Amino acid sequence: MSTVGDEVIRCKAAVAWEAGKPLVIEEVEVAPPQKDEVRLKILYTSLCHSDVNFWDAKGQNPLFPRILGHEAGGIVESVGEGVTDLQPGDHVLPVFTGECGDCPHCKSEDSNMCDLLRVNTDRGHMIHDGKTRFSIKGQPIYHFVGTSTFSEYTVVHAGQVAKINPAAPLEKVFLLSCGISTGFGATVNVAKPKKGQSVAIFGLGAVGLAAAEGARVSGASRIIGIDLNPSRFEEAKKFGVTEFVNPKDYDKPIQQVIAEMTNGGVDRSVECTGSIQAMISAFECVHDGWGVAVLVGVPNKDDAFKTSPVNFLSERTLKGTFFGNYKPRTDIPKVVDQYMNKELDLERLEKFVTHSVPFSEINKAFDYMLSGEGLRCMIYMEH
Amino acid sequence: MSTVGDEVIRCKAAVAWEAGKPLVIEEVEVAPPQKDEVRLKILYTSLCHSDVNFWDAKGQNPLFPRILGHEAGGIVESVGEGVTDLQPGDHVLPVFTGECGDCPHCKSEDSNMCDLLRVNTDRGHMIHDGKTRFSIKGQPIYHFVGTSTFSEYTVVHAGQVAKINPAAPLEKVFLLSCGISTGFGATVNVAKPKKGQSVAIFGLGAVGLAAAEGARVSGASRIIGIDLNPSRFEEAKKFGVTEFVNPKDYDKPIQQVIAEMTNGGVDRSVECTGSIQAMISAFECVHDGWGVAVLVGVPNKDDAFKTSPVNFLSERTLKGTFFGNYKPRTDIPKVVDQYMNKELDLERLEKFVTHSVPFSEINKAFDYMLSGEGLRCMIYMEH
Repeated sequence: MSTVGDEVIRCKAAVAWEAGKPLVIEEVEVAPPQKDEVRLKILYTSLCHSDVNFWDAKGQNPLFPRILGHEAGGIVESVGEGVTDLQPGDHVLPVFTGECGDCPHCKSEDSNMCDLLRVNTDRGHMIHDGKTRFSIKGQPIYHFVGTSTFSEYTVVHAGQVAKINPAAPLEKVFLLSCGISTGFGATVNVAKPKKGQSVAIFGLGAVGLAAAEGARVSGASRIIGIDLNPSRFEEAKKFGVTEFVNPKDYDKPIQQVIAEMTNGGVDRSVECTGSIQAMISAFECVHDGWGVAVLVGVPNKDDAFKTSPVNFLSERTLKGTFFGNYKPRTDIPKVVDQYMNKELDLERLEKFVTHSVPFSEINKAFDYMLSGEGLRCMIYMEH
Repeated sequence: MSTVGDEVIRCKAAVAWEAGKPLVIEEVEVAPPQKDEVRLKILYTSLCHSDVNFWDAKGQNPLFPRILGHEAGGIVESVGEGVTDLQPGDHVLPVFTGECGDCPHCKSEDSNMCDLLRVNTDRGHMIHDGKTRFSIKGQPIYHFVGTSTFSEYTVVHAGQVAKINPAAPLEKVFLLSCGISTGFGATVNVAKPKKGQSVAIFGLGAVGLAAAEGARVSGASRIIGIDLNPSRFEEAKKFGVTEFVNPKDYDKPIQQVIAEMTNGGVDRSVECTGSIQAMISAFECVHDGWGVAVLVGVPNKDDAFKTSPVNFLSERTLKGTFFGNYKPRTDIPKVVDQYMNKELDLERLEKFVTHSVPFSEINKAFDYMLSGEGLRCMIYMEH
């Protein structure tokens, strides 16, 4: 990195040039932040399944060349016109979805799906002027979900930036910018299991284990983890998962297996894989009369959810959540504070980081995820 | 009717001998109530869509000869062994689903889907001994949902009987035994619109209008009624419906029409038709971020509910309800009391009865319903 300030910054970024090909560390130009934007110095980032989904672009629209990355922590480097609540030096978490504060969603106590800054995975530019802030020798490089944290510096809309307690350890709390909040919030804010109830968690990656942690904190009596990868179970025990079900071990639908284990179904389920079949199973495995299923995982774009309407009429509820129903600017700083005050039992947060690589070796993070090894690989910048 | 007491009663009943053929008033034998059963003298009953669905048996399993009918009010004639909370002379509403009081559902505050006495439309006998209490010259005549109220006398499990305030006018409150409670409860107990919110009601029959009444009582600002029959709108206005949408008037999906009318979708919807397409529309027409759709109508048995999972992930909720989430023995007597105390603004109850026929002319009630004329046809017994 050769320049810092209000001018163009030249720094290293990991560029996805083509679907499914290793990222290439390139020197990129990062333009100054425009109106309502901030430029961030990224310190820690990690790879999340959503990055991989748009990188391999098998179930999503391809858009290349692009700088991926959205789970991260950093420091404000400079701010654009009109930004009053952030200033250089602030510790922040960029978030893949925003909060403008003015739209009906931001004003609703139930929603976090801001009209202006809601996640848009197909958009590769900044909303202010429809242009990118990244370029390589003048060639625009697309953004990803407004964050593009696989870069030493990035430009983000101020509404997508949570300003957090500067005493919080960024190398831990950066995980709250996406997966952990998504999973934990899905359980505590949406599924809301009652003390003593049973909870099924589909998918025991970082999001699923955070959902399991939410169930444990809520006093769930049984936490049933479902995953196709049996190596996940040992790790899952640390997060309170009490039983493990591998669909590969049965020749009947997994919802039936779970119903038999639980005298008719679990009280709550949380789906964290994005597989459409898992979504259907997660819904159909909850108990009639009171069961609530919550969808978290992102499906492929042409997937269809299909079930008998009788499953609803027998008093099951199906909800979806987005970022654990947290409002990014309002709620995430509070979650960080709860973590700091030990009100939230997320000292387990560090258990989520099972690998760590320098930014120059970012492709190793892809290898770990694609092989199903570990949970989160922390990627640390070498500024 | 020639005999009353603890012996067999001979009385008139309307028998469905074949699918879709007019009922035939026959003299039937009604056996005495067995263990946990009561024999009721029916005073008022009416025809509900579910009766018609099992009568024409187009989307349901056929079972004939059968005595249909489940929306009714009457008086206990005699009680079987083990029945302690009901006695001859009690004013009661038989209900198509029961409440044993002992199962996990009855003990859950969220469910009314009793394990023992939950509605079972395919069962044609009493659960005590697997036999019918109705016969004609020794030929068994099947029961319907444990109530079979198209008979001057019927035998019902005591767990399916709501004992109500004897001062309540049976000719009005008998409607609370099915459709009105189902619709009203779907809105006030399940959809729970907040004051000022918009509510869409699919289907403006008795159940839908009761759901609309629930929305009006909840302070909804807009109540949008959807029906294929434009003659329903005038009637619907009396129940608080403020706008009317006929899907036949548009060449685009009705969920899109509603989204355009409401800046993105209604806050709540309640589906009261049982049409699978209406169910999908009712779900897809609610606003993202906070919308809640509630399914009430009973589908054909092979219908599949299908939607994009993204509709859930953008924070919509889909719930089903059954009998408005009321527990029949615990809650229905309270609803009657609320009606008597004028706590519930259901003085509109009488508006639901648009026709009235003597029992001997019960087939006219089918004609009214099949032609879409009116709401409820009261059928009064001529004891």
